[in-house]
Amino acid sequence: MAEAASEELLLAAAFVSDAQYNRNIPFKTSPQAVRLYYLYNHWIMRTVTYFFIFLNLSLAVFEEPAVYPLPFLATSLVEVLCLLVFFGRLTHFAKITPRNVFWKDTKNICIMVAILLSLTDLAIYGALRIYNIKSIRWSRIARPIFLINFAESRQIRRAFRSIRNTLPEITYVFLLFMFSLLMFSLMALKLFGERNLQTAEGLPYFRNYLEIVFDLYVLVTTANSPDVMMPAFDFSSWYALFFIAFVIVNTYIFMSLFLAVVYNNYKKHLKNEIRQLAYMKHRKMIEAFNLLKEEEGAQPVVREARWKQLVKLVAPDISNSHRELLLRISDDEQKGFIDKKSFVQLADLLNIQVITLKIRSHPLGQWMPRVYKSSVSQFLRSMVRHRGFVWTYDAIILINAIFIALDEETPYISYAEWVFLALYIIEILLKVYTYEPRVFFGKNQFWNWFDTLIIFAALTATILNTTLKSTTQYNSQQILDIVFILRVLRLIRIVDSIQRFRVIMNTLINIVPTMLTFGGLTLVVYCIFAIIGMELFHGKIQFFPANSNAPYALECGNPALKDSLFARGKYCKNNFNNFASSFIVLMELTVVNQWHVFASGFANVTAQPAKLYFIAFHIVMVIIIVKDVLQDEQLLDNMESAEHDLEGEVGTKTQPRGLVFKIASKRYRTVDALLQRMFEAEIPPEDEGPSLEEILNLPPAAACPTHLTSERAV
Amino acid sequence: MAEAASEELLLAAAFVSDAQYNRNIPFKTSPQAVRLYYLYNHWIMRTVTYFFIFLNLSLAVFEEPAVYPLPFLATSLVEVLCLLVFFGRLTHFAKITPRNVFWKDTKNICIMVAILLSLTDLAIYGALRIYNIKSIRWSRIARPIFLINFAESRQIRRAFRSIRNTLPEITYVFLLFMFSLLMFSLMALKLFGERNLQTAEGLPYFRNYLEIVFDLYVLVTTANSPDVMMPAFDFSSWYALFFIAFVIVNTYIFMSLFLAVVYNNYKKHLKNEIRQLAYMKHRKMIEAFNLLKEEEGAQPVVREARWKQLVKLVAPDISNSHRELLLRISDDEQKGFIDKKSFVQLADLLNIQVITLKIRSHPLGQWMPRVYKSSVSQFLRSMVRHRGFVWTYDAIILINAIFIALDEETPYISYAEWVFLALYIIEILLKVYTYEPRVFFGKNQFWNWFDTLIIFAALTATILNTTLKSTTQYNSQQILDIVFILRVLRLIRIVDSIQRFRVIMNTLINIVPTMLTFGGLTLVVYCIFAIIGMELFHGKIQFFPANSNAPYALECGNPALKDSLFARGKYCKNNFNNFASSFIVLMELTVVNQWHVFASGFANVTAQPAKLYFIAFHIVMVIIIVKDVLQDEQLLDNMESAEHDLEGEVGTKTQPRGLVFKIASKRYRTVDALLQRMFEAEIPPEDEGPSLEEILNLPPAAACPTHLTSERAV
Repeated sequence: MAEAASEELLLAAAFVSDAQYNRNIPFKTSPQAVRLYYLYNHWIMRTVTYFFIFLNLSLAVFEEPAVYPLPFLATSLVEVLCLLVFFGRLTHFAKITPRNVFWKDTKNICIMVAILLSLTDLAIYGALRIYNIKSIRWSRIARPIFLINFAESRQIRRAFRSIRNTLPEITYVFLLFMFSLLMFSLMALKLFGERNLQTAEGLPYFRNYLEIVFDLYVLVTTANSPDVMMPAFDFSSWYALFFIAFVIVNTYIFMSLFLAVVYNNYKKHLKNEIRQLAYMKHRKMIEAFNLLKEEEGAQPVVREARWKQLVKLVAPDISNSHRELLLRISDDEQKGFIDKKSFVQLADLLNIQVITLKIRSHPLGQWMPRVYKSSVSQFLRSMVRHRGFVWTYDAIILINAIFIALDEETPYISYAEWVFLALYIIEILLKVYTYEPRVFFGKNQFWNWFDTLIIFAALTATILNTTLKSTTQYNSQQILDIVFILRVLRLIRIVDSIQRFRVIMNTLINIVPTMLTFGGLTLVVYCIFAIIGMELFHGKIQFFPANSNAPYALECGNPALKDSLFARGKYCKNNFNNFASSFIVLMELTVVNQWHVFASGFANVTAQPAKLYFIAFHIVMVIIIVKDVLQDEQLLDNMESAEHDLEGEVGTKTQPRGLVFKIASKRYRTVDALLQRMFEAEIPPEDEGPSLEEILNLPPAAACPTHLTSERAV
Repeated sequence: MAEAASEELLLAAAFVSDAQYNRNIPFKTSPQAVRLYYLYNHWIMRTVTYFFIFLNLSLAVFEEPAVYPLPFLATSLVEVLCLLVFFGRLTHFAKITPRNVFWKDTKNICIMVAILLSLTDLAIYGALRIYNIKSIRWSRIARPIFLINFAESRQIRRAFRSIRNTLPEITYVFLLFMFSLLMFSLMALKLFGERNLQTAEGLPYFRNYLEIVFDLYVLVTTANSPDVMMPAFDFSSWYALFFIAFVIVNTYIFMSLFLAVVYNNYKKHLKNEIRQLAYMKHRKMIEAFNLLKEEEGAQPVVREARWKQLVKLVAPDISNSHRELLLRISDDEQKGFIDKKSFVQLADLLNIQVITLKIRSHPLGQWMPRVYKSSVSQFLRSMVRHRGFVWTYDAIILINAIFIALDEETPYISYAEWVFLALYIIEILLKVYTYEPRVFFGKNQFWNWFDTLIIFAALTATILNTTLKSTTQYNSQQILDIVFILRVLRLIRIVDSIQRFRVIMNTLINIVPTMLTFGGLTLVVYCIFAIIGMELFHGKIQFFPANSNAPYALECGNPALKDSLFARGKYCKNNFNNFASSFIVLMELTVVNQWHVFASGFANVTAQPAKLYFIAFHIVMVIIIVKDVLQDEQLLDNMESAEHDLEGEVGTKTQPRGLVFKIASKRYRTVDALLQRMFEAEIPPEDEGPSLEEILNLPPAAACPTHLTSERAV
């Protein structure tokens, strides 16, 4: 009986925990499955999975063409290990989820296919290698699939799904854009083709239709403006109108149109998806409630003791007083039990970060109270607390900045560096002396941590450098560079002392989650394009140091680049010869400027269709960046309102009790959690909603609220 | 008595009309003032004002440095004329608005000061000119003030106000950005300054702090990527990380931050402003109601006859059946009078475009029914109505496209042109024969108009060209160019035959109002920068045709440009030597690419601080473009919801009666009208709100709703 009760509690805790973190994994409810589910969600298991995902991705650094070459056997063993881990994780997942759900989920199938393909490819490549036949490791582009499809990377998967949903409409805009581009190119051919004009490089201007299309596509990205216009403009001023009209139509108007279409579509799908999430969260809390409920009069309730056990299981880390506070909010009339409506709120309540503002006394005050409370010590502490202290150090930082800008060689100035380091260390010591150390190095004291780390790193590096110099008479360039950077980074903290800037930094922190999703998407795209790029362009362009005697050193080792803008711009080091170089090239392509020089350069050393690779990359990045900008705004939008809501709601329910509420700064600011609030108000608290299975079996896109409402009658 | 009643009616009509078009001019209510007010709002008066505003702006084309030089006497006389017109318009405005309101309004003061300054400057310049002393026409940069401040350009003024409201926050972000830029520059100086590196042009690399700051600012705009990175990257691959970090922080993160800050601020102010507008509209309708109301039982109402007179005055163009429809909606129980609640909706009802779908018979059918209704004619018409007809012509257009792309010189192909022209004309004739001509050339048949105009223009131009060729043996280049462009434009109509594309074109049309505001803002900024640019850089850079023997022809006539990227890119024709050239340069600067080459070029021929001109222009354009993007989205956002609202609201109230409702495609889609709907729901219909004077006397930014609510008790 007690066994059964504890198993029920465990299951209920799993539901609540899923609701709190918005996990939507349909798991079996048998006791073993629930235990396996706990293990599946354990942070160590998730960290290990992420570690192997990134290890698998980073293999490209060590495989041919390698940044750091490792023997094929080593990389392939690591890859097999990664694939085994992925397979293990998938098997684990299969154990906790019902069989029919598991096999219906495309992401599981995707992972399995990717594992199989990778193994097959590895086997074939290895076998051919034994017979010295060179083949292509084509399965490498499947590696990002693991990053996208493991349940942990929900944000990235949602972004991908949202892009996929937008694709049909984007395609039509793109077709219209292509039509406009082809039309303008036709006009350009007719207007300029027979004028015998020449570009600044002395090449024929606007003679070949396909070249015109490419040149004008580049103009849409603005990368060859105004060069592409100059020959025609020099011929007649009126021709400038053609290019101005072209840029207005194809760059500005089509970009607006593109944004508008994506935005409309994004909003439509987001709304449905988030509504579904809100329903699921509600549903899970109801399931948990039903497991734990007892009758109190005619009303089903959860008794206080049971509720406390549950909270201890769900959030073992929170303090007793915090738990008491949650109880007071849930059972505000102190009846000894929690009704359904209050119980459902628990998932949200757990997401509110509570900061305990205990006024602790300084350890020194306890250790040697006479010294610490002496008048000298008190004067010192009041001095540190004074605003003048901050201003003094701001002044010191400014003087430091001037010293950094001055010439390094004068011994006078290099001694000053020691003085500054000493001053900064004194500041930190004084602050720790004045404020409670555990408060000073609290979780949320980002700037204090930043300061301290930077200054101690600078101290270490400077000492290391000086020791090296005095013992070996040799200045290590790397260490010197790091010292320089740390010195300049130290100056950042002046930002923290101006209130206005601190507000802006907070806005910045709010954007971080979206930027991380964007970073994940970018990583996936970069990996795929880097691997394709290496297969296409590996070794075609080589970098030789200045003064090299290699043949065609100025043409990047390839005579096809003679007189090209690529060689003239000295871009030889921008090549696809290894994974790191490829990433740098892709970064430069993301910045867009001069991408046409890259495209033409790599087309020269291979074939003209190679330009398609660069155009494809550009289009993909535009889609991702637009997505990011939109999500950003949407997030900010909802964050604002969500925050107000919460403050009002909770604020009124709390009694001052030595604890101070503060909205969680990070946990709560995920897109998931925030946007759900928009829809939660729509669900009546008494309504149980459709069952978990029903919600999960709905196709993601079709999960519109009316559909759910109509099914509720079942 | 009848006199007084008609005067009241006139006044009420003025209120309703103001509510309909969202005009917020506080006018005196005396009968003469009301008549003057009608005159003030007459479209002819407004068109004349706009004409003189643009005439005044376009004077820069004829003044030194002129595109088309005119004697100083001529331009100054025209300018005096413009100023007189502006003064007249302002006097007219002063007559209709209460004295204290007039003198409190900054825009009136602005106009007066601008007129006075322009006259003074003109007088001084003229006087000095008589004595041959050269001076600067500095008042010319005041000319855009007339465009901003005349009451007609409300959208532009609002955009300016909104930018002004955002400025403090933008400034803080900008300061933070500058701080980051200076820090990175300091790091760059320390890391690369002593490496003796060289740029691709062989110049010293990253030695001078100010130059580094400029180069890195250019990198933020991405204009010199990847060139600025290559020397360091060639030296060590690790240094690429510095530039990648720089671009991520200063381009992407700061841009996100900037967008977020502007967006938050924009929303905050927009909400207040639009709320104020909604109150004013409501208030005006109440004023009109109070003027016309009579007692019906205890209820104040407006009788049907009075209401019809009012509608005839406000909207003289609408048909009787349309008016009847409006009446039926307002008086849906057919009681013979309209109550307050329905009356207030009139302003919105008038904004709904009603399209009368009368099935008219074809004039040919009436004129010669036997022929028109013969079986041959009916077969012809059913053929034209068939989808195959559209497809046939789509195929013809495609074949035409191929012919255009082919070489012009073959006589065979130039004859084909006549065939295509004939085919297109036959198509139009057939369509006019089949469909009713007044329907075919209806107001909303954009594509029919477009087609017909293009084809007849092409016909005229081709005939003209052939005549010229056969009579004078001379091909006029201009006419040939126009023929080419028209031929290609003809191909656009293929877009119309694909449903999906038509939907996208509609989205495009929705963005037009925002783009016009953006265009207005851009025009103002361009005018100011063009005039300053001409004063700073006029004549410093000159364009010489190829093969010119002028000294320094390759250096744009200025030895200071020797070896510069500006001269090497053959950018000589991009100069500030007249108003038209300046506009083209500013357009190129708006596109951003290569702007640093312009900045360095013009700094070389004058002084280094000249770069500030280019940086300032870049910053201003970024602010305007960000504004535009946001407004765009906001607009789309609200349009969607507003449209649904309206369809629901009105649709249910209408009985089918031979008239078909359609939401106005243009009138209703102004930002003004749309966003107001968001707030109108908040105003209780019985509430009269604050008085007109109260609303108008509120400072625009402070007009928050709580403020209004508290004042309502007065």
